Amino acid sequence: MEFNIIRIARVVINVTDLDRSRDFYVNALGFVETECDGEHIYLRGLEEHTHHSLVLKKSDQLGVHALGYKVASEADLDKLAALFQAKGLKTKWLEEGTQYAIGRALHVHDVSGMPLEFFCKMDRVERMLQRYDQYKGARIQRIDHVNCMVPDVEKAYDFFMKELGFACSEYTVTEKERIWAAWLHRKQGVHDQAFMNGEGPRLHHIGFWLPDPLALIHCCDILASIGYAESIERGPGRHGLSNAFFLYLRDPDGYRIELYNGDYLTSDPDFIPIRWELDDPRRQTFWGHKAPESWFNETFPFLDIDTGEPIPVSKATLEKIKPEFIL
Amino acid sequence: MEFNIIRIARVVINVTDLDRSRDFYVNALGFVETECDGEHIYLRGLEEHTHHSLVLKKSDQLGVHALGYKVASEADLDKLAALFQAKGLKTKWLEEGTQYAIGRALHVHDVSGMPLEFFCKMDRVERMLQRYDQYKGARIQRIDHVNCMVPDVEKAYDFFMKELGFACSEYTVTEKERIWAAWLHRKQGVHDQAFMNGEGPRLHHIGFWLPDPLALIHCCDILASIGYAESIERGPGRHGLSNAFFLYLRDPDGYRIELYNGDYLTSDPDFIPIRWELDDPRRQTFWGHKAPESWFNETFPFLDIDTGEPIPVSKATLEKIKPEFIL
Amino acid sequence: MEFNIIRIARVVINVTDLDRSRDFYVNALGFVETECDGEHIYLRGLEEHTHHSLVLKKSDQLGVHALGYKVASEADLDKLAALFQAKGLKTKWLEEGTQYAIGRALHVHDVSGMPLEFFCKMDRVERMLQRYDQYKGARIQRIDHVNCMVPDVEKAYDFFMKELGFACSEYTVTEKERIWAAWLHRKQGVHDQAFMNGEGPRLHHIGFWLPDPLALIHCCDILASIGYAESIERGPGRHGLSNAFFLYLRDPDGYRIELYNGDYLTSDPDFIPIRWELDDPRRQTFWGHKAPESWFNETFPFLDIDTGEPIPVSKATLEKIKPEFIL
Amino acid sequence: MEFNIIRIARVVINVTDLDRSRDFYVNALGFVETECDGEHIYLRGLEEHTHHSLVLKKSDQLGVHALGYKVASEADLDKLAALFQAKGLKTKWLEEGTQYAIGRALHVHDVSGMPLEFFCKMDRVERMLQRYDQYKGARIQRIDHVNCMVPDVEKAYDFFMKELGFACSEYTVTEKERIWAAWLHRKQGVHDQAFMNGEGPRLHHIGFWLPDPLALIHCCDILASIGYAESIERGPGRHGLSNAFFLYLRDPDGYRIELYNGDYLTSDPDFIPIRWELDDPRRQTFWGHKAPESWFNETFPFLDIDTGEPIPVSKATLEKIKPEFIL
Repeated sequence: MEFNIIRIARVVINVTDLDRSRDFYVNALGFVETECDGEHIYLRGLEEHTHHSLVLKKSDQLGVHALGYKVASEADLDKLAALFQAKGLKTKWLEEGTQYAIGRALHVHDVSGMPLEFFCKMDRVERMLQRYDQYKGARIQRIDHVNCMVPDVEKAYDFFMKELGFACSEYTVTEKERIWAAWLHRKQGVHDQAFMNGEGPRLHHIGFWLPDPLALIHCCDILASIGYAESIERGPGRHGLSNAFFLYLRDPDGYRIELYNGDYLTSDPDFIPIRWELDDPRRQTFWGHKAPESWFNETFPFLDIDTGEPIPVSKATLEKIKPEFIL
Repeated sequence: MEFNIIRIARVVINVTDLDRSRDFYVNALGFVETECDGEHIYLRGLEEHTHHSLVLKKSDQLGVHALGYKVASEADLDKLAALFQAKGLKTKWLEEGTQYAIGRALHVHDVSGMPLEFFCKMDRVERMLQRYDQYKGARIQRIDHVNCMVPDVEKAYDFFMKELGFACSEYTVTEKERIWAAWLHRKQGVHDQAFMNGEGPRLHHIGFWLPDPLALIHCCDILASIGYAESIERGPGRHGLSNAFFLYLRDPDGYRIELYNGDYLTSDPDFIPIRWELDDPRRQTFWGHKAPESWFNETFPFLDIDTGEPIPVSKATLEKIKPEFIL
Repeated sequence: MEFNIIRIARVVINVTDLDRSRDFYVNALGFVETECDGEHIYLRGLEEHTHHSLVLKKSDQLGVHALGYKVASEADLDKLAALFQAKGLKTKWLEEGTQYAIGRALHVHDVSGMPLEFFCKMDRVERMLQRYDQYKGARIQRIDHVNCMVPDVEKAYDFFMKELGFACSEYTVTEKERIWAAWLHRKQGVHDQAFMNGEGPRLHHIGFWLPDPLALIHCCDILASIGYAESIERGPGRHGLSNAFFLYLRDPDGYRIELYNGDYLTSDPDFIPIRWELDDPRRQTFWGHKAPESWFNETFPFLDIDTGEPIPVSKATLEKIKPEFIL
Repeated sequence: MEFNIIRIARVVINVTDLDRSRDFYVNALGFVETECDGEHIYLRGLEEHTHHSLVLKKSDQLGVHALGYKVASEADLDKLAALFQAKGLKTKWLEEGTQYAIGRALHVHDVSGMPLEFFCKMDRVERMLQRYDQYKGARIQRIDHVNCMVPDVEKAYDFFMKELGFACSEYTVTEKERIWAAWLHRKQGVHDQAFMNGEGPRLHHIGFWLPDPLALIHCCDILASIGYAESIERGPGRHGLSNAFFLYLRDPDGYRIELYNGDYLTSDPDFIPIRWELDDPRRQTFWGHKAPESWFNETFPFLDIDTGEPIPVSKATLEKIKPEFIL
C-alpha cells in the first residue's frame, strides 16, 4: 500500500441519556472520562495517551458514526481519499476544527456501505497507565477492535485485504469453504476489524482490551453489585478464535461491548491465518458454551456520513446465519 | 453436643472405568493420586495430609457410598452411634482394617435415609502444598463440601443443626418462608453439607477448594484442550450464595463435581445466617446467569450401608423444584 | 478448655494523625471506614459483619492496646478471668458501654506481660462482601492474625497451648531444638497469634486477609502511584512458613501491616505441626529472599491495661535474633 | 527505510550442559522443546508458530551468538547487507542450509560491535497456544526482547533509530540529559532491543512474554520447589519503565532471563517517548525496590560472527553505571 492505516482508534455512538451511559461506562466499566460538554462524553482507556477512543453523543436516535481509523500521516489521508474516489465510493472531508479533539478527517462509505473515518491527529492527554489509584471497574486499557455484520463477508474481506492493506489472523468457513467471518488487523493483535455474515452493514460490537482475566471477572461482580447483571449477554469465556478471554455486555442503550484480554502477536507477515469451521463447537467459546440468540440477532445501525440517517441494509449472502453444533 | 464432628472428609463413588476416571480426575483436574490397587483409585488435594478425600471404586453399578465425616476422637464415634441408635436409625460398625487407610468407622442412615460415615483416623501422607512443580490442572487443594437433594430440607436441617451440631451460614426460602435449601458447616467455611429440595436422598455434587479463580479458568481451558468441553455443565460464575467463584463439571460417569474458591470465614457463633429468596436472580449466580435444567434434574443414587444397593427415594415435599426468575 | 476463644478480632493502635492514617488505610489499602468520632477511626474488612477489626486512636504517644480476642459466650469471659487470676496475672473488667461498639471486656496481661482483651459481643454492621462496587486498594477482607515478639517464646507457647487452648500449625527451632517462633491458632487458619524470639513483649505486625494474590500486587501499584512506595518493607513473596502470599507494609506511624492470602485449613486436631529450622532459606520467603534488618529490629510497644503507658520489655532468652543463611 | 525488520526472533547461547539447561528451561520455566540433536536444544514459547526462539548450543565456552531479527522479505536481507557494507561494518552470509531450521541469514557487527543476525524464513511448527494441557512452569508465550550493555548508548540509539528504523518507547537520562538507556522497538510493544550504559557490548538479558502476572508468581514457587530459588535474581516487581510485571532469573550458566508481562501498545508513530531520570526510584521498580549489584555488574559476552571468539569490549562513556537513589 502507499498509505499506512495504524489501527482502529475511536468509535462515536449516539446514546439517549448521557448520565445513564456515564454510570455504565465510567462507574461500572472504569473508562476514564476525558471531558464532557453536555452533548458528548469523551472516554478513554487507562493506557491511552490520546483524547478518547469512545464518544457518547447525545441523540434521540441510536446509531453508530463512521468507525475511526488512525493513519500514520496527513498524506495518507489524501491517498485514501483518492482510493475511495477511484472506486466510486462516497467520500467527505471534515477539516480540522470540525470535530472536537481530532484533526482533519476523511469520511467514506466502503464496499459494504459501512461508514469509515480516517484521521491522523488527536489531542494528547495524560496517560493514566501508572495512576493505579485511579483504576476502577474492568480497568479498561484501550480500544481493541470493532466487529461488524455485513451481507457479503468475502467482498468486505477482499476490500480490506487488497485495497486497505489489512492482514487476516483467523477466519471461519462454511461447509462449502465460503468465508463466513474474518478477523483482520493492521496493528499486531488478532484484529482491528472483524466481519461476520449477516444482515448489514451493522455494528456487532466494540472490543476493549483489559490488563488481565481477573479484571474481567471483577467487572461481572461489580455489574451485579450495582444492578447491571442484565447487561451481561455472554461469557465470561475463552474464545477459540483469537484465544482471548472475553465478556460481552449490553450498554444501557443496548450497544454490545466486548471486554477482551489475551490474544497473541501477529507481527509476522508469513503468519498463516487460522481456519475454523463454522460448526466447530470450540470456535466461539473454546469451552463449548453456545452464544445466546441475541448475540447473533441484535446489531446496531450505522449512520450515513452525509445525512446522519441510518443506512440501508441488505440480507446476508450466505444462508447460514449462525453455527449449528451439538456438543 | 458431646461429640465433635470436624468436617466432611471423604466421598467414595462407584465408577465404571478406572482409567477413564483417572484421566479426568488426575490429568485434567489435577488431583494427586495417592494409590491405586486395581479396584480403587485414592485421590487427594494438594494441601491434604491425609490419604485421600475421594475414592473411585470400580463397579458396574453407579452409586455413592456413605459420606465420610471426620470426628475429633474415637469416643465421638461411640457417642454418635448412641445418638443414631436412640433415634432408631440404622447403624453399622466397620472395624479398623475393614476399609483401606482409615480407622474404625461408623456407618449410619440419617433422618433423610442418607448414608453417612464417621471416622477419626486416616493414614497420613506427604502434603504436596509446597511441591508447586507437581501442580496440575485445576490445582485441587482439598475437599470442601457435599450437596445433597432431599425430599424434606427442613427435616434434614433440624437433624444436622440440633442433633449433629452443625451451624447454618446461608439458606433459601420459598414465598411461604419454607426452607428450600440450606448451607450447613462444622469447619469454618460456608458449608460441609448443603441440602436442596428435591427427590432424594440423592447426591447433587461434591465440591473441591481451589487456590484462586485463575486456576478454575485454566481448568476450563485444559478440559477443552483434551476433549472434555462437554464435561462443563455450568459456570464459571460467582455464586450469590456463598460468594464463591464456581464451576460445575460432570465426570465421565456423570457425577457432578464443583470447583470452588473464595467463600468466607464462618467462625463466629453469633453470625446471622444469610437469607435468600428462591427467585432472587443473584442467588445462584450473582451475575444472573441461569443454571441449566440438568443441574436441577440430574442427581446420583446413594447406596445402602448394608446391602450396597441404591436406596429408595421420595418425592420432594415442597412443590417448587427450581427457581423461576426473569432477569 | 472450659472456655472457647474464637479468634483474634480487633487491634487498637495509637496514631498521631487520623487524616494521614485514613489516607493510608482507607484510600490506599481499601479498608471500609465504619465510623469516625474525631478521636477514633473504626475500620473493617469487606467480609466483616462486625463493627471493626482495627481502631486508630488519636494520641501523641504510639502504642498498641490489648489485643482483642472474641470468645463464644459471656460465660467464657468469667472463666478466662478466673484463669488469669488463678495464675496471679493482672485482670481488669471494662463493662459494656465503656468501649464503643463492643460489649463487656476482660483485659489482662499474659505470661509474657502482653496485654490481651477478651470480649463476646460487637455491634453488627453491613457486610460489604458483595458490594464489589465498593472494593478498593488491596481489597482487605478481614483481620487474620497478630505477630508478637516475646523474650521467651516457649513460655508464651506453653501458656497459649496449655492454658488458652490454642493449637500449633507451624514452628521454628534453633539448632538446639529450642522453639524460636510459633504459629498458633484458634480459628482454622495457620494462626491467630504468632510469637517470635526477641526483645518484648512488643507487637511485630497485624495481618489482614486478601481475596487473591493479584489484589496484593495491585496494592503495591497503588501505593507507588500515590507516594507510598516507601511504605513497602518486604515482599511481595511467598512464605515457606504458612504458604501464604505476603506483603509487609509500614503505616504512616511505622506500624507493620501484613497483607496475606492463601494459607490452608487447620481444622484437624491430629494435624502434625510443621517444623522449620531457623536457617532454612525457604522458611521466611519460600523463594529465598532475605527479610531486611528493619523487619527483625523494629517492633511496637504495648500499653499497660491500667496505666496506658508502654510496658517494660526484656531481652530475648535465645541468643539468635534472626536467621543466618547463605543461599 | 527501504527494508522492514519485523522483530527480535531468536537468540543462540552457548551452554555447558544441555541436560542441566533443559531442566531449567523446560521443566521449570515451561518452554516447549521443539527438538534436540545432541548438540543443540531448540526451544519455543506456547504461541510461537516458528521452530524456536531460543537455542541452547553445547560448548565449553559461554557466549552469545548474533541476535536474530526476523525481516519481512528476502530482499530486505540484501538491502540490510548493503547498508552495513556502506557503513564499513563487517557482514557475512550464511546460505540456507547452513543453520538448522532457518533460511538464508545475514550476520553483521553493528556500530557497537554487537553481532546481529537477520533472516526471513524459519520452519513452521505447531502452535501450542490452545494446548492448555501442555502448559507448564511460567507458561512462556514468546520471545519479547533483548537488553544489551553498550559503552555508548547514544551511538547505538542513533544507529537503530536512524539506520534500522526502530522507534523509541522510553528512555533514561542522566542529570546532563545524556541518554543512559533506551527502549527501542520494531514490533508494537515497548521493546525488541534495549540498551544500557556500561562496559560492552555485552548481553544483559533476554526477555520472554508471559500470559498473566500469576504465571510469574507460580514460576517463583516452582523454582523454589525444585531447588532453583537461587536462580531468582530480582523481583517479582513492577517496572516503572515499560509498566511490565517482571522477574529476573539466572540460568544454570548464569545467563539472565527476564519473565515479562503487561506492557502497552506502541503502534502510534506520534507516540512521545517517555523520559525517565536515572535516579527516579520508580524507574526500575515502580514500587521503589532497588536492583541488586549483580544486576548491574554481570553481563555476558558476545561472540564474533567470524571467529566465534568473545569480542572485545570498551568502557562505558558515561560515568554513572547505576542509579543512586535514596527512597
